[in-house]
Amino acid sequence: MISNKMKVLVANSSTIRAMFEEGKRLANLYGAENVYDFSLGNPNVVPPDAVKEAIVDIVNEENPNVLHGYMNNSGYEDVRDTVATYLNNKYALNLGTANIVMTCGAAGGLNIILKTLLNPDDEIIVFAPFFGEYSNYVNNFDGKLVIVPPDTTTFEPNMEALKAALTSRTKAVIINSPNNPTGVIYSDSALKQLAAILEEAQKTFNTSIYLISDEPYREIAYDHATVPYPVHYYKNTFIGYSYSKSLSLPGERIGYIVVPSEVDDFNDIMGALNVANRILGFVNAPSLFQKVIGKCIESEVDVSIYARNRDLLYNHLTSIGFDCIKPKGAFYLFPKALTADDRAFCEVAKQFNLLLVPGSSFGCPGYVRLAYCISYEQIERSLPAFSKLATHYNSN
Amino acid sequence: MISNKMKVLVANSSTIRAMFEEGKRLANLYGAENVYDFSLGNPNVVPPDAVKEAIVDIVNEENPNVLHGYMNNSGYEDVRDTVATYLNNKYALNLGTANIVMTCGAAGGLNIILKTLLNPDDEIIVFAPFFGEYSNYVNNFDGKLVIVPPDTTTFEPNMEALKAALTSRTKAVIINSPNNPTGVIYSDSALKQLAAILEEAQKTFNTSIYLISDEPYREIAYDHATVPYPVHYYKNTFIGYSYSKSLSLPGERIGYIVVPSEVDDFNDIMGALNVANRILGFVNAPSLFQKVIGKCIESEVDVSIYARNRDLLYNHLTSIGFDCIKPKGAFYLFPKALTADDRAFCEVAKQFNLLLVPGSSFGCPGYVRLAYCISYEQIERSLPAFSKLATHYNSN
Repeated sequence: MISNKMKVLVANSSTIRAMFEEGKRLANLYGAENVYDFSLGNPNVVPPDAVKEAIVDIVNEENPNVLHGYMNNSGYEDVRDTVATYLNNKYALNLGTANIVMTCGAAGGLNIILKTLLNPDDEIIVFAPFFGEYSNYVNNFDGKLVIVPPDTTTFEPNMEALKAALTSRTKAVIINSPNNPTGVIYSDSALKQLAAILEEAQKTFNTSIYLISDEPYREIAYDHATVPYPVHYYKNTFIGYSYSKSLSLPGERIGYIVVPSEVDDFNDIMGALNVANRILGFVNAPSLFQKVIGKCIESEVDVSIYARNRDLLYNHLTSIGFDCIKPKGAFYLFPKALTADDRAFCEVAKQFNLLLVPGSSFGCPGYVRLAYCISYEQIERSLPAFSKLATHYNSN
Repeated sequence: MISNKMKVLVANSSTIRAMFEEGKRLANLYGAENVYDFSLGNPNVVPPDAVKEAIVDIVNEENPNVLHGYMNNSGYEDVRDTVATYLNNKYALNLGTANIVMTCGAAGGLNIILKTLLNPDDEIIVFAPFFGEYSNYVNNFDGKLVIVPPDTTTFEPNMEALKAALTSRTKAVIINSPNNPTGVIYSDSALKQLAAILEEAQKTFNTSIYLISDEPYREIAYDHATVPYPVHYYKNTFIGYSYSKSLSLPGERIGYIVVPSEVDDFNDIMGALNVANRILGFVNAPSLFQKVIGKCIESEVDVSIYARNRDLLYNHLTSIGFDCIKPKGAFYLFPKALTADDRAFCEVAKQFNLLLVPGSSFGCPGYVRLAYCISYEQIERSLPAFSKLATHYNSN
């Protein structure tokens, strides 16, 4: 009795569940400390103390009916004002309350943007490798996902392939930087090229093409790398932000959308985002955590913990022959599998208690994703297993 | 550039925004204490102290990465177990963790149920008067809303009209008791009749027809009234529950779905609800408030405050000639307008600083909704305005 769409989706998601079950099975057999689960993007760095302090202060200070009550579907005005001011200072922007919608994480944000924009069969372009959920979000609104093949040399957007993919039905292009699954930060030069191509396409097709920047990893950047702010490059830009990683709060579902006043049809879009937030059933971003963001806007997790994990794992993998870009952000490595079939490679890795995600899940076969948001000690323990995996392939 | 669907939705929602703006305008002109806003269902009774205590205890006791982290998309197992056990004790059921999905309020719950069930053009039956958002939720998944006309004598479901509305495309029937906007609690006898009609229709059409019970007002019941539990009446029942009213936490977006193991295609449905929670962008119900529910499962707001409001307003309105059922639940009165055109009546009411919602917004023209979840003192101050409104109509 479930819908035809859901039948397909449930079948697809059974792979993820199967991996999760496999992890539990292995942990029961060998002990959790001897199973190296690199499959989940669940932050292990603790949220800043400021979060806990803010929660306690807020429940002690605020009127509970206001604190836990309904507000405008776009969020509390004071919180939106705090977010706008923070972004103005950090990125030299000119945002106000009217440019911000508080959302249930970036996932909620992307869904209300797509609900706002998409007519059936409208096209949304993504760059492989891409976060697999984009496919589901676009499908929620009967849009058509158009996948630009990867540039595996740099893992920056493949510009020539983008030009070929743009059509009169292109409604938006989604980017994600620092990227899941590669960890690559899209460069200033890439964003300039991307913007020029989109400007050109808007003229060619006489349409508006929106750039949707999905940014849960913006704050997770290493080696003093800067993450360019797409609003500076292209007028028709939406930012979808999340505090899931920057404050280690993925379960709380808190984030925001930025829509600069310059985007085409700004007023219609803001009205529609507000309504979409309500009718998709979010209603509003969780109210207490909106207020927490208002108090913790300057807080960040200790990113050096992830950087140390990255170095340990990257140095070992490359020393034993893995081919991998050294990522400057997010908490993933995306090495080439040691055999062409990435799914088969992940199956073999399980024999060494290594749980990895095939690149095929991100539209990029032949590679694997390793989420290194686990403890340093666990990564240390996993290194011999990776060596054995490499030996297995070298000796075959 | 916004989608065709959203253009319609934004236009419809401008009425609500217009009323909100009108309220602010009147408050500026006359002072907030002289504007009688009966338009919003935002609880004014304070959340139980237990909620605040639970929040502080939880953030002091729990590992913050677990507390604020990802869990199964259906929610924390311990919380789902607590909910199941509570319901088993209260309603003599046999639920377990596998029968509960924690959701972003009832709105989130209804949306994932409809995402799970609906193919395009499948029919969902609602009983007028009904919460207007059902129309939007069904439209999210391209379903067809079928409205059963009201029985204005009792405001219970119109059974003869239901029989006529059922077809081979009927996927589900939504009920809402205690009801928004009437405050009526559907009786034991009504639920028995409803179940018999649905059983019969399932046989006639050889289909599964689900009953979706939307229950944000279950705990808001007066005069020792009992609210029958639909699971006892009909096998294919979903319960969509919310703590928005029972704990006065509407902004926090916390609730759950109950799916008894006996429903048709139980396993497929639970798998699909889990996936739908993820891909619609909820991902999971907000994590801290899941834990709050785990600690506050026995807590309730002081419903006597609403009962006192109801009595004050109901007694006055009926004394000055309004025709109104005395509701046993929720926090709304639904009197007949003093003229056939309910929208015109609400416009006239504004002249007396009374903000009411036309019954047309609930599929029931000729009536108006008054939300009495405002202070007793404010209701007291409003009574002369209602008297003037009645005099206006009686003298014309």
